[in-house]
Amino acid sequence: MSEVIVRGKAAKAASYKMSGKTTAEKNEALAKIADQLLADKDYLISENAKDLEQGKKNGLPDSILDRIMLNEKRIEDMSAAIRLLIDLKDPVGESLETIEKENGLLIKKNRVPIGVIGMIYEARPNVTIDAATLSLKTGNAVILRGSSSASYSNQALVGSIHKALAQTSLPVDAVQLMEDTSRETAKELFHLNEYLDVLIPRGGKNLIDTVVRESTVPVLETGAGNCHIFIDESADYEMAENIVINGKTQRPSVCNAIESLLIHESWFAKNGTDLLAVLQGKGIELYGDETVCTAFSEAKQATEEDWATEYLALKLSVKIVKDVTEAVEHINQYGTNHSEAIITKNAENADIFLNGVDAAAVYHNASTRFTDGFEFGYGAEIGISTQKLHARGPMGLPALTSTKYFIYGQGQIRG
Amino acid sequence: MSEVIVRGKAAKAASYKMSGKTTAEKNEALAKIADQLLADKDYLISENAKDLEQGKKNGLPDSILDRIMLNEKRIEDMSAAIRLLIDLKDPVGESLETIEKENGLLIKKNRVPIGVIGMIYEARPNVTIDAATLSLKTGNAVILRGSSSASYSNQALVGSIHKALAQTSLPVDAVQLMEDTSRETAKELFHLNEYLDVLIPRGGKNLIDTVVRESTVPVLETGAGNCHIFIDESADYEMAENIVINGKTQRPSVCNAIESLLIHESWFAKNGTDLLAVLQGKGIELYGDETVCTAFSEAKQATEEDWATEYLALKLSVKIVKDVTEAVEHINQYGTNHSEAIITKNAENADIFLNGVDAAAVYHNASTRFTDGFEFGYGAEIGISTQKLHARGPMGLPALTSTKYFIYGQGQIRG
Repeated sequence: MSEVIVRGKAAKAASYKMSGKTTAEKNEALAKIADQLLADKDYLISENAKDLEQGKKNGLPDSILDRIMLNEKRIEDMSAAIRLLIDLKDPVGESLETIEKENGLLIKKNRVPIGVIGMIYEARPNVTIDAATLSLKTGNAVILRGSSSASYSNQALVGSIHKALAQTSLPVDAVQLMEDTSRETAKELFHLNEYLDVLIPRGGKNLIDTVVRESTVPVLETGAGNCHIFIDESADYEMAENIVINGKTQRPSVCNAIESLLIHESWFAKNGTDLLAVLQGKGIELYGDETVCTAFSEAKQATEEDWATEYLALKLSVKIVKDVTEAVEHINQYGTNHSEAIITKNAENADIFLNGVDAAAVYHNASTRFTDGFEFGYGAEIGISTQKLHARGPMGLPALTSTKYFIYGQGQIRG
Repeated sequence: MSEVIVRGKAAKAASYKMSGKTTAEKNEALAKIADQLLADKDYLISENAKDLEQGKKNGLPDSILDRIMLNEKRIEDMSAAIRLLIDLKDPVGESLETIEKENGLLIKKNRVPIGVIGMIYEARPNVTIDAATLSLKTGNAVILRGSSSASYSNQALVGSIHKALAQTSLPVDAVQLMEDTSRETAKELFHLNEYLDVLIPRGGKNLIDTVVRESTVPVLETGAGNCHIFIDESADYEMAENIVINGKTQRPSVCNAIESLLIHESWFAKNGTDLLAVLQGKGIELYGDETVCTAFSEAKQATEEDWATEYLALKLSVKIVKDVTEAVEHINQYGTNHSEAIITKNAENADIFLNGVDAAAVYHNASTRFTDGFEFGYGAEIGISTQKLHARGPMGLPALTSTKYFIYGQGQIRG
C-alpha cells in the first residue's frame, strides 16, 4: 500500500473517533499542543535550521527562506493563535433546522465534522499548525502535504502535535503528515475520493489552479484576487482617492488588494489626472488604456494581459468605461470572483453593480481590503473561498463542517 | 468551437441576465412554460413516438421504453409540477447573516443563484423539464445533457421551453440542450470549469460514479443508497417488523429503501426466525451470514459482495452483530452515506448509532423511507445528496443557490 492509502485509511478511522469528541476534549487537546510547541521550541528551531541550510544550498530566494524560518517569536505566535482558537465557538452540534411532522417525527439538521480534510500547501510551516488545529477544533482528521523545502520543520511540528495528542483522548492519527512530498503523492491525493472528503490548497495561483483542474476530490478553492474598484460618475473625489490608495497600497501582496481601476469617462475628464498623479506619487506604476495614456503620459500602455493580472505589487491597471454596465462586464470577464467595489452616490448604479458583479464580496463605498475572516468577525480564517459551492468569501470554522439529519420517531413508517 | 464551449459561453452570459430577474418575472416564465407544454401536447407526443420507435428497433427493454414514453397524462403531470414550483418560496435574495461593524460597515450575506448548472441524466424526458424549471426558479442558467435515446423528446420539450421564454423577460439562452450526446461531449462537460459552476448527475450508480470520478467541475453527488436497519437488543418486536417491512417493500426500487438488516445476537436468538419467516412471506429473498443460514435454512449464504449491494429489488442481506458498535462499523464500511436506522429502547445505544454512523440521515425508531424532500417539507427535490460539502441529504431549492457578501460603507478604509 502506498503512503497515501495508508494515511487515508488511518485518517478515516481517526475521523470516526474524532466526531464523537466533546468541545471540552478538543479544547484540552489544543491547549496541550499550544504548550508542547513552547516546550519544544529549541528542537523546532534546530530542525528548522536544517531546512534553511538545505534551502540556501538549493538557492531558494530570501523571501522563501523567510517564510520557512522559525524563531522564538514565531513559535510563540503559533502557540498564541491556538489559544485564540480555543476561545472560538465550536460549530459542531449546532442545530440549523428543526422540523416537526404531523406524524410525530422530529427532524433536526445539525452541524457535524466533514470527516477527513486534505491540505496541500507550500513552504510555510505555520500552515502545518494552522491546518492541524483548525481541523481538530472542528472534529476532523487531516492529512497534511507540505513542501519538501520545509520537511524537517513540518516533521518536528507534527511530532510536537503527536506528543500532545498522546496525552489526550483524541486519536494521534487525526493528524497525518505525508513524508513523501513528491508530485506523485500530490496527484494521488487529488483522486483519493474514498478517504478524503475535501482538499484545500493553500498557496499561490499555480498550486490552486493545479488542484482545481486535476482533483476529483471536492476542493475548497481559496485565493487569487484580481480585484477592481469602479469610480462612478457621481463619486466623491476624496472618498475615491482614499479608497483606491487603501485598496492598492495598504498591503499590496494580499488577495483583497486591488489590481485594476475602472473610471467613468465623465469623472475621469474632471478628476482623472489629479488622481493618477497622486497614485504615481505613492510609487504605483500605472498601466492605462489609450484615454488614460493620452491624458497622463507617464502611464504605460496596458496590454490585454494586464487586465487579467494579479500584480500583488505596487502596479495598477486603469481603464476608462462609459457606464456602470461596461464596468460590470469588464469585471465579469477579467475578475477572479473575489472582491469588487463601486464608489458612487447613485443608489441605482450601486445596485446594478452589486447585483451584476459575480464575486464573493461586493462593496459600495468601502475598500476591498475588508474581505477577511477576522474583519468580518469570524475570529479564524480557513481562507477566502472564490468558488460557489459550500462556502463563498471568508471562511470561518463552520466551513470545515457538514450537516446531518437526525430523525427521531416512535415507530413511524411511510404510507 | 465545440458545441460544449458554444453552449457554455451562451449559458454563462444568460446566467448574468438571470441573476437580476425578480421572483415575479421567473414565476411568470414558469407559468408560460406550464401552458406551452399543454399547448404543444400533440407535437411532444409525436416527437416522443420517434424515440420510442428508435428504441424498439435498438432493442431497449420495456422498462426503459416506459421511462421514455410521454402521454397526455404525463405531460399534464409535468405541467402541474411546474405550477407547484411557482408556489414555492424563491430562496434568492434571502439574507442569511447581517453583521454591523463598529466602523459603520454593514455586511450582509445573501443567497444568490449559483450561475450555470450542468445536468447529465439518462433516458427520462421528465428530467429535462424538472432540471430546467428548478434552475430557472433559482435564477440559474442550465446546460442539459440527456440521453440520445430520448433526443427527439428532449429537443421538443426544450423547443416548448424556448417558445415560452421568448414571450418573457428571461433570456432564451438560459436553457441549453446538448444536441451531440456522445461520450466525448459528456467528458468535455466534466472539465468545463470555466463556464460550469456545478455538475449534477441524475441516474444510476454507474453514471454518478463516472461523473464523480472524472469531473473536475464541482459535483453535487446524489443517489446510491445501500441503507441499513439495525435491530438492537431491546427493540420492540412489532415496531421492528413494521419498520423493516416498510423499509424493504413499500417501494423497493428507490434509494432510501433498505438493502441490509443488522440484528443484535440476543434479539435474533429470541425473535430472529419469526421475523425472517414474515419477511420471506412478503416475497423477500434473504441472504444471510452463517448464524442466519443455520437458524433459517431458506436463507441463501451472503457473499462479501452482498453487504455492499444496492439490490433495488425484493432482496435483503441479513447479518448478526454482537452490539451497536459492530453495527456502526459494518455500516461505515459498506454503506453509501445515505439513510441508516436503529430500532432500540436504549437511548445510549441510539446516541452511539446516530452519532457514529456516517450518513446524510440517521433514524431512531423510524423507517429510512422518509429521506425525501417532499416528506421533509421542502416541496421540491433536486435529489438526495450523499456528499459532505454544500448540501447533504434531501436538497430543496436553496441547494441550487450560493451566497454573496454585500458590504455597504460610507468611505471606510482598512487601518
